[in-house]
Amino acid sequence: MAHALTLGRRGQGRCWPNPAVGCVIVQAGRIVGRGWTQPGGRPHAETVALAQAGQAARGATAYVTLEPCAHHGQTPPCAEALIEAGIARVVAPFEDSDPRVSGRGFVMLRAAGIAVTTGILAGQAAEDHAGFFRRVEQGRPWLTLKLATSFDGRIATASGESQWITGPDARRLVHAQRNQHDAVMVGGGTARADDPSLTVRGLGVAHQPVRVVVSRLLDLPLMGQLARTASQVPVWICHGPDADATLHKAWEGLGARLLPCTLLGRQLNPTSVLQALGQAGLTRVFCEGGGTLAASLFEARLVDELIGFTAGVTLGAEGRPSIGALGLEHLADAPRFDLVETRAIGPDVMHRWTRRTAPE
Amino acid sequence: MAHALTLGRRGQGRCWPNPAVGCVIVQAGRIVGRGWTQPGGRPHAETVALAQAGQAARGATAYVTLEPCAHHGQTPPCAEALIEAGIARVVAPFEDSDPRVSGRGFVMLRAAGIAVTTGILAGQAAEDHAGFFRRVEQGRPWLTLKLATSFDGRIATASGESQWITGPDARRLVHAQRNQHDAVMVGGGTARADDPSLTVRGLGVAHQPVRVVVSRLLDLPLMGQLARTASQVPVWICHGPDADATLHKAWEGLGARLLPCTLLGRQLNPTSVLQALGQAGLTRVFCEGGGTLAASLFEARLVDELIGFTAGVTLGAEGRPSIGALGLEHLADAPRFDLVETRAIGPDVMHRWTRRTAPE
Repeated sequence: MAHALTLGRRGQGRCWPNPAVGCVIVQAGRIVGRGWTQPGGRPHAETVALAQAGQAARGATAYVTLEPCAHHGQTPPCAEALIEAGIARVVAPFEDSDPRVSGRGFVMLRAAGIAVTTGILAGQAAEDHAGFFRRVEQGRPWLTLKLATSFDGRIATASGESQWITGPDARRLVHAQRNQHDAVMVGGGTARADDPSLTVRGLGVAHQPVRVVVSRLLDLPLMGQLARTASQVPVWICHGPDADATLHKAWEGLGARLLPCTLLGRQLNPTSVLQALGQAGLTRVFCEGGGTLAASLFEARLVDELIGFTAGVTLGAEGRPSIGALGLEHLADAPRFDLVETRAIGPDVMHRWTRRTAPE
Repeated sequence: MAHALTLGRRGQGRCWPNPAVGCVIVQAGRIVGRGWTQPGGRPHAETVALAQAGQAARGATAYVTLEPCAHHGQTPPCAEALIEAGIARVVAPFEDSDPRVSGRGFVMLRAAGIAVTTGILAGQAAEDHAGFFRRVEQGRPWLTLKLATSFDGRIATASGESQWITGPDARRLVHAQRNQHDAVMVGGGTARADDPSLTVRGLGVAHQPVRVVVSRLLDLPLMGQLARTASQVPVWICHGPDADATLHKAWEGLGARLLPCTLLGRQLNPTSVLQALGQAGLTRVFCEGGGTLAASLFEARLVDELIGFTAGVTLGAEGRPSIGALGLEHLADAPRFDLVETRAIGPDVMHRWTRRTAPE
């Protein structure tokens, strides 16, 4: 199952809105088939693994990282394929909460006399499929917020210098993290200040995540990196109802996809932004700031995962804050996160947290 | 030698201005004497270990974490004691840079026919004796700055709430760290806002570090924790030439020791503060903020070691910054630190850094 989970992760960022599933088929202690959800979401992991196994699938055990699908979508149901191939036993972490599946895959398998075991590595599988489940259950993608800051939590000097606070090892890890997400997202202020390309570089990977910019007024540089490359790598812009019509046409002309969102006060409503991204099929979004967008996401309690890179440099109180104003009255009201891991990444510290859901 | 270093550390915070030395005497593979510098700085580690070893010291090897002293101070020289006891071999990390010793201890030993080996665990020993060397060489104590902050580098909410950002495990570790320092230091703002006692609590330790407050005008609460306990646990106040004479008398009356320092602009000159503390004998000072004092120490490049505790909570840009304004023009001018270690402490992340001395 651990191997199937590793395989499944290969599809992350590439098969949305489908889940990134892994499948390993074992016949008499020997792996005869391995598969993962292919780019674009099909063929499914089981289909790939069964094709590889061929006749060896007969009487074999299939380890699948999610309940095999039971519905006829763009591919025939995987549960059917497993039955036809003569699989004797299916091991899976848990049921798929997609209402089109939710238990019916297992029912189909059991009805065909296949032994079904669930509960194996369910924790890790839940983490891997968190984006898929978040979208199915709440209509929005899983949101990971990454902030690379100085020791004192600043993302740039007063004059806006931010390259580079963290070192090359941290930046390389960020590219690997972008590569495992459906989309990379920044606020308009960061797009204007840093003119980022938001692509995955230096990893020898051809696939690129969608680049999302949150910009109420669409006032983004029309000669910048994003504009110049919008025809090659997708650029989606979440904008408000009051965005300029000419800019709207200009960005569409450049090849960007425009997603209208509602306002909350004077800013774009972050819930509306994430719903629009979920509607468009995204399951895992990697947000890289800046401080204003980060603050609005925290205020709306939309940050599922938080990744900090802390550098051994101090910028002082004039430096730009990593998180904008939150309007908190009391410490008890502040959003709390649980530590998942911390380790040194080159000269910097990486720390990863997930939102605390249960009350203390 | 590792054992001798561990023993030596027991004296940290207790034997200033003397170094906290450890000594282990080994006779035919068996430990026959163990000692460390006693509270107040004497007897020395070697004296304690030799007394324990008695006749067994004859022909034995002495592991000492610093060059044995060669001068007649308040105790007779340890080099002489080792010779008289009949020690055959002395193992030490390196020479003592105290000009009263610097090599003469080893010369005395070798002249008496004792084999001397140096260079053993010199890195760890240098770290343990960093405070002693800093004072001998630069006249000031080693300065460790500890800051416990939110994920976004804030030490309190806008309204000043700071209890508790980090958890009980981190706070317990802070008490253990206080216990290993000669003094705990805070700025006047923190003394006024938090009314801290700055004592070591919850560790079953009777010894207390000196409590140092940096307050230009001596405008500290005369009814606060520090004032109330100044007669039991030392309180030293570094103040400016313009401090109120009545307050000066009041604090002296409460039992505080007053250290006059010079100004740099409108603030106390941090170099003058640390020189005054060095003059008074301190070798290891543990500073716990606040943001203004931290900034002035960074600006003067006086922070030797930096310890961060990062909690999984976000306070936003209105929160109080951990480090005040530094007046940096460029990122390249910002003080840089090298990561020593990072690990989870309960629900928080601890990260420890030392000042980068060599250019990149």
